[in-house]
Amino acid sequence: MNTIEQIQKTVADLVPLYSQAEADLPDRPLWEHPEIDTVIESLRILSDILFPGKYMPEPSDFRRFFIQQLENVVEILQQEIAKALPIRWKGAADLHENRTPIDNLDRASTEIVNQFLATIPTIRTMLIEDVKAAYNGDPAALSYAEVKLAYPGLVAITSHRIAHELYLLNVPLIPRIMSEHTHSLTGIDIHPGATIGKGFFIDHGTGVVIGETSHIGNNVKLYQGVTLGAKSFPLDEHGRPIKHIQRHPTVEDNVIVYANSTILGGDTVIGKGTVVAGNVFLMQSTPPGSLVTRADGGVVVRTRETSERGAGI
Amino acid sequence: MNTIEQIQKTVADLVPLYSQAEADLPDRPLWEHPEIDTVIESLRILSDILFPGKYMPEPSDFRRFFIQQLENVVEILQQEIAKALPIRWKGAADLHENRTPIDNLDRASTEIVNQFLATIPTIRTMLIEDVKAAYNGDPAALSYAEVKLAYPGLVAITSHRIAHELYLLNVPLIPRIMSEHTHSLTGIDIHPGATIGKGFFIDHGTGVVIGETSHIGNNVKLYQGVTLGAKSFPLDEHGRPIKHIQRHPTVEDNVIVYANSTILGGDTVIGKGTVVAGNVFLMQSTPPGSLVTRADGGVVVRTRETSERGAGI
Amino acid sequence: MNTIEQIQKTVADLVPLYSQAEADLPDRPLWEHPEIDTVIESLRILSDILFPGKYMPEPSDFRRFFIQQLENVVEILQQEIAKALPIRWKGAADLHENRTPIDNLDRASTEIVNQFLATIPTIRTMLIEDVKAAYNGDPAALSYAEVKLAYPGLVAITSHRIAHELYLLNVPLIPRIMSEHTHSLTGIDIHPGATIGKGFFIDHGTGVVIGETSHIGNNVKLYQGVTLGAKSFPLDEHGRPIKHIQRHPTVEDNVIVYANSTILGGDTVIGKGTVVAGNVFLMQSTPPGSLVTRADGGVVVRTRETSERGAGI
Repeated sequence: MNTIEQIQKTVADLVPLYSQAEADLPDRPLWEHPEIDTVIESLRILSDILFPGKYMPEPSDFRRFFIQQLENVVEILQQEIAKALPIRWKGAADLHENRTPIDNLDRASTEIVNQFLATIPTIRTMLIEDVKAAYNGDPAALSYAEVKLAYPGLVAITSHRIAHELYLLNVPLIPRIMSEHTHSLTGIDIHPGATIGKGFFIDHGTGVVIGETSHIGNNVKLYQGVTLGAKSFPLDEHGRPIKHIQRHPTVEDNVIVYANSTILGGDTVIGKGTVVAGNVFLMQSTPPGSLVTRADGGVVVRTRETSERGAGI
Repeated sequence: MNTIEQIQKTVADLVPLYSQAEADLPDRPLWEHPEIDTVIESLRILSDILFPGKYMPEPSDFRRFFIQQLENVVEILQQEIAKALPIRWKGAADLHENRTPIDNLDRASTEIVNQFLATIPTIRTMLIEDVKAAYNGDPAALSYAEVKLAYPGLVAITSHRIAHELYLLNVPLIPRIMSEHTHSLTGIDIHPGATIGKGFFIDHGTGVVIGETSHIGNNVKLYQGVTLGAKSFPLDEHGRPIKHIQRHPTVEDNVIVYANSTILGGDTVIGKGTVVAGNVFLMQSTPPGSLVTRADGGVVVRTRETSERGAGI
Repeated sequence: MNTIEQIQKTVADLVPLYSQAEADLPDRPLWEHPEIDTVIESLRILSDILFPGKYMPEPSDFRRFFIQQLENVVEILQQEIAKALPIRWKGAADLHENRTPIDNLDRASTEIVNQFLATIPTIRTMLIEDVKAAYNGDPAALSYAEVKLAYPGLVAITSHRIAHELYLLNVPLIPRIMSEHTHSLTGIDIHPGATIGKGFFIDHGTGVVIGETSHIGNNVKLYQGVTLGAKSFPLDEHGRPIKHIQRHPTVEDNVIVYANSTILGGDTVIGKGTVVAGNVFLMQSTPPGSLVTRADGGVVVRTRETSERGAGI
């Protein structure tokens, strides 16, 4: 078989698989869904409104610049939210939730966009507190500009505070496309559902995972590799994971969690001011002001001559 | 010295270093190798064939669209594989493997491309199982579309199933350029050599490393930060690492490995249905149905008043 | 309120917040700072000079090609360094350091660029040692070209050796923008201040964090998820973190640190030839030739029938 014949055979084999998959996975075709690149574009414009100058030159007229940028965001979000809304009642997972279709998608989308616009000043106010928390929390930070221009934790919380407002407005999929893009850029994976208080700082950040139903208080600081995750998934009477209970921890005000620690469980409450050391695996609540360390008494240091080569590595 | 003079001096110092390096590192110049950006472009087109609509608008004619896309892939891969094949016998590491040069690179490349084309329908079938595994494995997933559009684990396994077929066809370098690009996007580092069964799901994924000779069964689920790695490298009579023995673990069907656990060793077999808890460091085999946890008895929780400031953090 | 009215209200609410923030965060506006995209462009051109052919086709005239590329780099760096220098004395954090303004920013920037140009041949020489270290340190590496084209550890150390020279020349912000871009690409976060010897190899790399005042010797090898971090931050008489003491570890020649281990503290010295196993949490020095393992005696393996469902996970 030459290459042209092989291409035709491959396509002949592929096409029925797409039909089969549509029967297996009852979604609409992907092109009816929000466009990834367009959603990411809206996130970038919003970041520029929240930190003007980070990516764009100085505008000649500030007020006009912001109005234009918001008009661009509105145009994108109205269109993409209208595409996303049917997922609420057409998505396979929602079939058991009996949600009723919306008649006028454009009007519904416009209402959501208007509500979202009203939240932007509050997002900005929160982000300034986050900049201060990063600056004060890291001796290596030499200016606020450094935090704004070179801290992945700020990129992550900026994206999250935007995506979280859309999540609260019950917009399907778009917040997750935003959070996943930011995850790709920063290595920080915050589900849009997570509730996060003021003055939040993630240092370095690669490997951080914050689950959908996490509750985080004010002035909390996390280091790279920290997971706030689920312990196990309670199932409903149909054997499906129950989707709307708290599966992830509560972390109260002024808590610090050092690198690569894992905290699991919807019942787990880390009390105010607790410090969790690095590489800790924690599935229990702690009283306020606790210090949590590993129980293993640390490490064994041997000279290599007295040990087998390769042992323990 | 002014800047122009300094530029000339720097270039005068640099040029002999390139010649020196060629003597030290007996590769051909980099421009004779596959182009990174072109290889990544082929990966993107293949992703669109496997999940049509993820990045591109709806085509007016499906069959024609797929044929055109495959023609584009064929053109890229024929050209880049022809550049890659000489690495088999010219690459420094292969000098001791006595491989003989191929006379007609274009013909050899075309044959490989044809064989690769024939695997695409099977890749698609496998990926649908992966989508289902992700949807069923994560309570936060609300539709199949969400998995297809916003799950890094699916990006990683899509790329891997493509790269692995090229690896099996003994194509040098190109599979690794693909896997490394995907590693950059997702934080998930799967060597193209790894064998992975049906219904594979990596949740969150940042920090996952799956080594070249890993064997993974069906319906396996890994969380972020999991390593399937090598324990030590047996050396040959010349003191060089032996390249073609199993250095990485075998993970049997229905195994779950929770966040940030490390499993090492080519002799290590994780038996069917085993659950490995988070933050575990494991270098031994487990019987089927095992539950593996840390032996350290968990954590110590103290009030901070009774402990030294900074201790344990 | 319709959308147009809502946009105007949002802008009316936002504009005073920007003025407020300027009072709170005494930086210059972001558009007076170095441009992120331009700095990244200079890093890309420098990478191409250091590994010609990685991203660009073969030039017809080598010497002329390098001169043109360096001229491009010089133009970018002169302009961006001139923007960055005022951060030394205008940045909030530097207010207590009493640095005096530079009169002629362009001349100061040119001098720095000239000094930087002179370091490029040495950077190239160091990087060839890094390529060899990667090739020799990884059985999966089949050619030097594979290391140059597909190893994130090499991307990270290339960027670091460039950023570190600018850091030594006391250039604000630009080295951090470079290191953060590379962090985003590779998951490897090396502060530009870190001192790193010859023949350095990071394998896989996602989640690696190397702090500003780390000292790393020759022929050191780190795996994914390794942190060289700070234990605690000594405060000055104003309660501010002291910025110029060693807060991060010293790692001597020929040390290997396996995956996901954390080493903390400015007093911590890992002696020559020490091997630190995976998932170790270490806050003490080790004598030369040590082998460091976890003290927890490994893991507990139970059959799942005898254990509670969900326990330990």
